[in-house]
Amino acid sequence: MSFQLPKFISPDFTKDFFTKAPNVKISEVKKDGVAPKGFLMTSILPAYFKINERWVLPIQTSIECTAVVRDNNTVEVVEFRNLKVLDKVVLGRTIDGSEGIYEYTCGFDDLPNVESGRSVESSFSGDAKELYELLEYEKQNNGHIVWVLGPAVVFDYDTRASLSALAENGYVNALMAGNAMATHDLEGGLLGTSLGQNIYTQESVEMGHYNHLDLINEARRAGSIEALINEGNIKDGFMKTCIEMDIPVVLAGSIRDDGPLPPVYHDISSGLDAMKEETDKATVIICLATVLHSVAAANLASSYRVVDEKVRPVYFYSVDIAEYAVNQVSVARGSASVKTIVTNVQDFVVNVQKNLI
Amino acid sequence: MSFQLPKFISPDFTKDFFTKAPNVKISEVKKDGVAPKGFLMTSILPAYFKINERWVLPIQTSIECTAVVRDNNTVEVVEFRNLKVLDKVVLGRTIDGSEGIYEYTCGFDDLPNVESGRSVESSFSGDAKELYELLEYEKQNNGHIVWVLGPAVVFDYDTRASLSALAENGYVNALMAGNAMATHDLEGGLLGTSLGQNIYTQESVEMGHYNHLDLINEARRAGSIEALINEGNIKDGFMKTCIEMDIPVVLAGSIRDDGPLPPVYHDISSGLDAMKEETDKATVIICLATVLHSVAAANLASSYRVVDEKVRPVYFYSVDIAEYAVNQVSVARGSASVKTIVTNVQDFVVNVQKNLI
Amino acid sequence: MSFQLPKFISPDFTKDFFTKAPNVKISEVKKDGVAPKGFLMTSILPAYFKINERWVLPIQTSIECTAVVRDNNTVEVVEFRNLKVLDKVVLGRTIDGSEGIYEYTCGFDDLPNVESGRSVESSFSGDAKELYELLEYEKQNNGHIVWVLGPAVVFDYDTRASLSALAENGYVNALMAGNAMATHDLEGGLLGTSLGQNIYTQESVEMGHYNHLDLINEARRAGSIEALINEGNIKDGFMKTCIEMDIPVVLAGSIRDDGPLPPVYHDISSGLDAMKEETDKATVIICLATVLHSVAAANLASSYRVVDEKVRPVYFYSVDIAEYAVNQVSVARGSASVKTIVTNVQDFVVNVQKNLI
Amino acid sequence: MSFQLPKFISPDFTKDFFTKAPNVKISEVKKDGVAPKGFLMTSILPAYFKINERWVLPIQTSIECTAVVRDNNTVEVVEFRNLKVLDKVVLGRTIDGSEGIYEYTCGFDDLPNVESGRSVESSFSGDAKELYELLEYEKQNNGHIVWVLGPAVVFDYDTRASLSALAENGYVNALMAGNAMATHDLEGGLLGTSLGQNIYTQESVEMGHYNHLDLINEARRAGSIEALINEGNIKDGFMKTCIEMDIPVVLAGSIRDDGPLPPVYHDISSGLDAMKEETDKATVIICLATVLHSVAAANLASSYRVVDEKVRPVYFYSVDIAEYAVNQVSVARGSASVKTIVTNVQDFVVNVQKNLI
Repeated sequence: MSFQLPKFISPDFTKDFFTKAPNVKISEVKKDGVAPKGFLMTSILPAYFKINERWVLPIQTSIECTAVVRDNNTVEVVEFRNLKVLDKVVLGRTIDGSEGIYEYTCGFDDLPNVESGRSVESSFSGDAKELYELLEYEKQNNGHIVWVLGPAVVFDYDTRASLSALAENGYVNALMAGNAMATHDLEGGLLGTSLGQNIYTQESVEMGHYNHLDLINEARRAGSIEALINEGNIKDGFMKTCIEMDIPVVLAGSIRDDGPLPPVYHDISSGLDAMKEETDKATVIICLATVLHSVAAANLASSYRVVDEKVRPVYFYSVDIAEYAVNQVSVARGSASVKTIVTNVQDFVVNVQKNLI
Repeated sequence: MSFQLPKFISPDFTKDFFTKAPNVKISEVKKDGVAPKGFLMTSILPAYFKINERWVLPIQTSIECTAVVRDNNTVEVVEFRNLKVLDKVVLGRTIDGSEGIYEYTCGFDDLPNVESGRSVESSFSGDAKELYELLEYEKQNNGHIVWVLGPAVVFDYDTRASLSALAENGYVNALMAGNAMATHDLEGGLLGTSLGQNIYTQESVEMGHYNHLDLINEARRAGSIEALINEGNIKDGFMKTCIEMDIPVVLAGSIRDDGPLPPVYHDISSGLDAMKEETDKATVIICLATVLHSVAAANLASSYRVVDEKVRPVYFYSVDIAEYAVNQVSVARGSASVKTIVTNVQDFVVNVQKNLI
Repeated sequence: MSFQLPKFISPDFTKDFFTKAPNVKISEVKKDGVAPKGFLMTSILPAYFKINERWVLPIQTSIECTAVVRDNNTVEVVEFRNLKVLDKVVLGRTIDGSEGIYEYTCGFDDLPNVESGRSVESSFSGDAKELYELLEYEKQNNGHIVWVLGPAVVFDYDTRASLSALAENGYVNALMAGNAMATHDLEGGLLGTSLGQNIYTQESVEMGHYNHLDLINEARRAGSIEALINEGNIKDGFMKTCIEMDIPVVLAGSIRDDGPLPPVYHDISSGLDAMKEETDKATVIICLATVLHSVAAANLASSYRVVDEKVRPVYFYSVDIAEYAVNQVSVARGSASVKTIVTNVQDFVVNVQKNLI
Repeated sequence: MSFQLPKFISPDFTKDFFTKAPNVKISEVKKDGVAPKGFLMTSILPAYFKINERWVLPIQTSIECTAVVRDNNTVEVVEFRNLKVLDKVVLGRTIDGSEGIYEYTCGFDDLPNVESGRSVESSFSGDAKELYELLEYEKQNNGHIVWVLGPAVVFDYDTRASLSALAENGYVNALMAGNAMATHDLEGGLLGTSLGQNIYTQESVEMGHYNHLDLINEARRAGSIEALINEGNIKDGFMKTCIEMDIPVVLAGSIRDDGPLPPVYHDISSGLDAMKEETDKATVIICLATVLHSVAAANLASSYRVVDEKVRPVYFYSVDIAEYAVNQVSVARGSASVKTIVTNVQDFVVNVQKNLI
């Protein structure tokens, strides 16, 4: 296998430039959820903070959060809504070191190299091959592969089967999705349809427009998806595979949802916190056929993680049939930190499975 | 003024077909939020229910809800999540009268007439003229005009000014939006920018990428948008106009939100309930430049309302620069119940204002 | 192999309805290229003409042409620009038989069954499997498989290799394209780039923006693509494969072309006549990643052909990453006569090849 | 009126850098239409050529052409297909002066300032105001305003009327379009429909699908659009206005055309030459609702012209409802040289007319 993680070369903090820089300024939170004036806004890129004469890297970061100094020696990246009174928030609006904050964009010797504005006429086959090798590497090296899925991925029998096979073979460490993806997949397992269409033939079945509501109503009666699956009537599907394999599933709701299914977070903050638990562990994130959840993941996920005191990249893929969809994800996260692939997600998933298993 | 509401011609319930039809079957809810098996799913179209030998029309309806019989003589359309134990839910899956349920699609003599699948090459100027007359009519006849706005509508000085003028002249009875629209509009009022771009010149300003977070942080400090506006630093904008004129503003959040602003609903069910309060009063709904909130409104809003014992249509417009966006709204609600206009929302709003004021 | 051609059931012309219908009216052309008033416009669907008391089916048809009676016993479908003085043009504007013209849409027992307005969220894997079986059938039964290709298909090494493999294994009977596809493919064969990007790595090469012009200039110097290939410097590619295997290649130009390459038709009428020579033989047409040439093919190609006195369908596929592109083709030809597949054309071609060879 | 042409500041050719640079190398054409190896490819930007110790600017330029030295003292930009034996073609592939070729991108003190990759959420009202002032200026200062129109602009009565009003008031100096735009506009003038839809109400009329073919057939019978208009049956429309006011109309065909109308160029090279005659005079080019003809114009038109020995910019606008369409034009010409406006072209044209007349 040819894949190697790029090495991270730390800045040389013995240089005058760094030794002469000031420590960061901080100010304490006066009201929960409100930052002091002049707060620093974080990005997904690595940034060092000078604290007590040492340059410190948070173990991970997120977009548009605050940096909070803990115990005068570490920095934690904290969302505005999670700030607590007395939290010590880093102040400053420059990231060139002059205020003790240094964003460091060139640490990896082999950066994820993505052209921005790549048009749909581009070929993506090179990207796909890189992804296969990466997934193989992560599986063998304790990586954490997070899939973020929109409903279109489960409208088709082959795709659902391929996703389950990927899970069974160790390529799925967490699933994040919304109400619709879970509903359509479970509808397929219970009734053989997705939004009322047969998942083998894509033909509409009689009264099939009731199927997703019947499924949701059944799940609400059972009390949870897990309870519904335990009743034994869900024959197959990716949700069933994940639940039975104890793969974490985070379902975050939206104002468009039917139902919703019982474990779907309808409190947005709790949903985001649950998603962040998975993105904080992620080494690879693959987003398919959803703008809403992809953008949320793009906002939450760091571009790097510190694992065993080593800095490694977090890879982020956005795959969709619609160019505008992957572009929205790119804009949310910065195009250099997103690999975009424009293709039919059915073809994508089946090809991933065939190349890995 | 030429606009006339179409007349509604009731079915002739003295006909054998109706007198011989059975009363609806009902079953009681056993668990909150769970419908009995065989429940009827409602649509946005008028449907009569035979109860106690009388045919009854709910005063309004929503997509994919249940029909609950109250006091053995009226029917209320209730969302699954709002069902309570002992609620009497209508059973049945046919809507041709044979189970006491009769969907009636041809009641208006001049139905909103929309071709489905109309391509972007179509001309929309006729639709725009109809809308001007409709808004004039609604203003003069106690209509309730609800605007559903995405963030793009407030990136431009002229558009914000036109929206405020429309509000000041009685053409805005409620505003529904998300965190981003409110943030960008208030950012314009506080700092003269929208997402860091000057709203007159669209040029980026220095450190402007901090502006929306500074605005949100200020609002969170003040405790609410209203409190922030009362402090006097918001110079202009549509949010300021609405708040100062006591026009109801419902902001429903999503997992993509920054912040959020303090009055944004982060509990989805509460957000939907608040939106429904406005759609229940609506006679016209105009959705601009947002898929998420437009689809939510399309799901919530009835295609008709009973006002003073008369049945009248509820008009629903979806306006966006992207054809796929208006098509998603059309699919959610049924194309016959949505007027779609594909154009630049800035041009649209300014033209509406110039033609009405 | 499971694929069977659907049977064609002729109308029962012994019925009164047909025996009592009049013969068609005709009128002679007075000026080349101008039809007599009241001409019948043809469609791509089978239509019978009553001539001399017999109902006659043209051996194939095209959209928006005239029907010309030859020798008082056959009908030929002729483009307006090809009408000649004294041609006997069928008059009539009804196709229900009352003017001796009968369009017959339900002849095949297993019609190409395509839902119109299918959204990009649909699964296409069933369609792809049908196509594999169809291509296998056509290869073994003297079918004529015509590929219509846009430039995006040759930007990638794997795709070019797959297309060549398909040709070498008998799945390509003709190629229709424009100047750009041929240029980029030959640029790949001569210089290893496509529009200046390395076709293996998609990285831009130095001065690569000159490569397509250098290639075109070389071809113009050589006098033709064939002459250029015979000089021996084109290492690989689909054009080379087609030319060397004597597979007909029709390149029709447009006002966007660079150059053009010497054999590109810059006279539109001649280009269309050359394309029609291939569509007239076609049993399957597969259009990839081009709107302009796909729509031209959609206009030219019949939905059926009479082969050995049997009527068989002509299958027409439109494949593109962009939904609006396949929709334009669908509109041009009628959605019932086009199978649309929305996916990355690289994935599509490689998957076709892997499933067939 | 506030509009001022930006001033052009010539390079200082007295500097050593320029005086020491070599004269350009040239090589003679050996075969018509074929450039010598090592030819220079032109862009739309101003480039000076050192000839006989003087730096010379062509009076205009086009993309991907050759530079031909005439009389040892001027340079003409010539398309490959128009090269003639003995033409003296400039050689060289660098444009920094070192081979006597100097591309000069910063000559105007107030460059057309366009952000690349501007998203559809942007506001375009500032751009529209600039355009109104520019058109006013050009009208009063002998400018040459060229409109490039797709068929969608004439589907609507108001838009056609606005275009005619703009022509009658001096804001249209040439029209470039394809077969479809002319056909639909003339169909409107003859039969009151466009593609069979009433242009006032957009409702389909009976047998309306024959109307465009009847119109084309009538024009072919008459022999030309002009002859048809002279017969007196075309009641209104933009084509009629242009023809009657002797505004040059260039119609360039494509392989998608019906008919075509008699004066449509079906020889692509002749069509391009006729278009170039107009783009060579242009000071402003406005492209609406057509990709094919817009890209052709984008390739042909210079970014500057030398008028009365002064260098002035040529303004190029691309207006379309679809972002991908304006992006294709931007890519063809370079985003810095195209102002893109994403809006409904009906709104755009009517607003231009209302603001100018």
